[in-house]
Amino acid sequence: MLIVADENIPLVDSFFDDFGEIRRVSGRHMGPDDVREADVLLVRSVTKVGRELLEGSRVRFVGTTTIGTDHIDLEWLEPAGIRFASAPGCNANSVAEYVLSVVSVYAEKQGLEDWTELTVGIVGAGNVGGELSHKLERLGFEVRLCDPPRAEREGDEGPEFVSLEQALACDVVTLHTPLTRDEEHATYHMIGADQLAGLTGEQLLINAGRGEVIDTQALADRLDAPNAPLVALDVWEQEPRIDPGLVDRVWIATPHIAGYSLEGKVKGTEMIYQALSGFLGLPVRKKSGQFLPEPALSKVAFTGAAEEDRAICVALRACYDPRGDDGRLRAAMKGNAEERALAFDRLRRNYPVRRECSSLNVQLKGTSKSLQDSFRAVGFKLKI
Amino acid sequence: MLIVADENIPLVDSFFDDFGEIRRVSGRHMGPDDVREADVLLVRSVTKVGRELLEGSRVRFVGTTTIGTDHIDLEWLEPAGIRFASAPGCNANSVAEYVLSVVSVYAEKQGLEDWTELTVGIVGAGNVGGELSHKLERLGFEVRLCDPPRAEREGDEGPEFVSLEQALACDVVTLHTPLTRDEEHATYHMIGADQLAGLTGEQLLINAGRGEVIDTQALADRLDAPNAPLVALDVWEQEPRIDPGLVDRVWIATPHIAGYSLEGKVKGTEMIYQALSGFLGLPVRKKSGQFLPEPALSKVAFTGAAEEDRAICVALRACYDPRGDDGRLRAAMKGNAEERALAFDRLRRNYPVRRECSSLNVQLKGTSKSLQDSFRAVGFKLKI
Ligand SMILES: NC(=O)c1ccc[n+]([C@@H]2O[C@H](COP(=O)([O-])OP(=O)(O)OC[C@H]3O[C@@H](n4cnc5c(N)ncnc54)[C@H](O)[C@@H]3O)[C@@H](O)[C@H]2O)c1
Ligand SMILES: NC(=O)c1ccc[n+]([C@@H]2O[C@H](COP(=O)([O-])OP(=O)(O)OC[C@H]3O[C@@H](n4cnc5c(N)ncnc54)[C@H](O)[C@@H]3O)[C@@H](O)[C@H]2O)c1
Repeated sequence: MLIVADENIPLVDSFFDDFGEIRRVSGRHMGPDDVREADVLLVRSVTKVGRELLEGSRVRFVGTTTIGTDHIDLEWLEPAGIRFASAPGCNANSVAEYVLSVVSVYAEKQGLEDWTELTVGIVGAGNVGGELSHKLERLGFEVRLCDPPRAEREGDEGPEFVSLEQALACDVVTLHTPLTRDEEHATYHMIGADQLAGLTGEQLLINAGRGEVIDTQALADRLDAPNAPLVALDVWEQEPRIDPGLVDRVWIATPHIAGYSLEGKVKGTEMIYQALSGFLGLPVRKKSGQFLPEPALSKVAFTGAAEEDRAICVALRACYDPRGDDGRLRAAMKGNAEERALAFDRLRRNYPVRRECSSLNVQLKGTSKSLQDSFRAVGFKLKI
Repeated sequence: MLIVADENIPLVDSFFDDFGEIRRVSGRHMGPDDVREADVLLVRSVTKVGRELLEGSRVRFVGTTTIGTDHIDLEWLEPAGIRFASAPGCNANSVAEYVLSVVSVYAEKQGLEDWTELTVGIVGAGNVGGELSHKLERLGFEVRLCDPPRAEREGDEGPEFVSLEQALACDVVTLHTPLTRDEEHATYHMIGADQLAGLTGEQLLINAGRGEVIDTQALADRLDAPNAPLVALDVWEQEPRIDPGLVDRVWIATPHIAGYSLEGKVKGTEMIYQALSGFLGLPVRKKSGQFLPEPALSKVAFTGAAEEDRAICVALRACYDPRGDDGRLRAAMKGNAEERALAFDRLRRNYPVRRECSSLNVQLKGTSKSLQDSFRAVGFKLKI
């Protein structure tokens, strides 16, 4: 069996070498000649997959190691008898940790001793929003979920949902919806002048979903008006040609990297490995934990003298602190529009290795049960 | 022998119990009756020591565990035959770590990958400035020292000194002079409109010496003008009645706590213990290391995957990050002038336990020699 894979998919060999021959090619320049002899095709979002690429090939299985599927012509694949798999939720934990770290930094900035005093409104409770709310609730935060499509789908079966207006009344409002237009509950410019008018200087608005969910012009205007909220943006309208004026106005600005942990990327590969194993009727023998390299920071130890909030936040930020990415993005916003766009893409392409909290061994000796629970809630590996 | 001591001096019993009886009293309310029978008096800066307190007492030795001696009437003590000792430099390392952490946060904010690219001008190269320059040079920074009194005193014997103007041309300018008036090289309002006019938006100005060294009004005006530098202030004019408008304008604002590490406080006690031992002709048997409690964060481990700058900065900020104190001070600046002054004092009085880098065990396995040297330069305890 021949597997053709984008050369930038991490750990392809480790996961797929038992299945047959692996041929690595450039995802950006992949053409029909590259895939004609392949049985299995593995791509990322840079490769357009449809009739043009696949017609006349042997390919029977296409996997994308990403959550998005915009680059895949699903309507052509199905009738062509080609099985397809993507990796929904593979980077949900990465984004959830990004948001937790932003919230911890916000609490520090506000001089709060107990960050769980903040109420959090999550708009879009799918893979990311769900994972985030799970962590926050275990940490003791009051969380409100807004997700009208889920509310309609799940009715009384689902958790309690609130309206967008109610979510926007929380101390922290964090957006995790997809970008949709022309349908019920469309999210395009869902946060516009009216929604922004109600936010105050005592609130934090985070967007790590899709940039177009917020109306950029309305946000810039709101940030110039009195009593403006603090804003943390990971996603932007018109990436990579983002508005440098908006970068100047927001508190935290990062280049769409909330989901860029190494664990998230490797989980994308793992999920496609699982799907292919299922398709081939073979057992799942490998797990990403086997292949992950040693992290730069491998261990921290706290003692009985540790205070709960401070200890959690120190460990969280030691793993990931959004202010590093913020500094790099701001520094990249010099130059003209073209240079800025290139710089935005470069920051994403050359993203430094970022590890999730699960990579950090946390030793807690003589600490309280509650501290231990909180470390577990975030996702740290505990040694008591 | 009777030792009367301010009840807020840490570890008095541990250090002094071999010398005789120890009586702890309130430093603020200490009066002649409290000290009449004492042989030794141990104070902090809240107790005025002179004829009024000591006349007719048995006291032969006065020690203050602070670097300042403004509260001691030295001119009365000497002819009265009372030996005196203070603790110069006891908190120099604490302030040096504060400045290093501010610089590391600044480098991150500027998107710099290598913080040692920053040149640092140190104004006032005494205990604090000297300790700071020592660390910075070992880390590989280019450092310029400005200290006209030392330059005059030491001539060709001393290190190379630069003018104030040259120091003010560095990327980072950090002030560590005492407050002096009416003498040559007086520091009162040494940094005024003229000096501030030359600073640009690419520079950082830190003051952790004395507030009155900078002209507050001139600084506020400069910060309202274009291309203003970033400013980090630990010390202020008219503490505790500091200018809330200046707090709003500076980047980092902390309540005169740069020297407040536990190690610094305990070193003050240790230095007086050493001085008293000398006075009594007794050997020095104890060291503060014996008595320091376990720190909240006791260990971190980095691996061969660690990048030098990032690892150092993670460890440094895990020990001390000025943005925590900044958040608390800003939150305290609500209310009227009286409430703000009380809040400023309260933040200092109830200061959380802060530990120096020497309290943190750093494990470095498979890391470069240069990384290890840098960790040592900051003052971490290393395990290779
Ligand atoms: N910043 C990053 O690096 C990063 C990483 C991963 C995902 N994302 C983005 O985050 C978004 C969410 O990702 P996911 O994996 O959780 O997707 P998901 O499909 O699992 O969840 C999205 C949720 O949003 C809900 N939703 C749809 N319209 C809504 C509306 N009008 N109001 C409220 N909720 C609504 C859906 O019902 C669904 O539950 C996606 O747009 C994705 O592209 C960004
Ligand atoms: N922020 C804090 O928590 C904190 C802690 C410790 C010390 N301090 C303050 O920092 C200052 C320095 O402390 P130190 O222990 O290093 O004192 P120090 O006396 O050891 O050193 C002060 C140095 O400043 C030099 N100096 C005097 N006038 C100068 C001028 N015009 N220009 C340049 N240099 C000049 C002196 O020659 C001396 O070398 C003091 O004012 C002290 O009160 C603040």
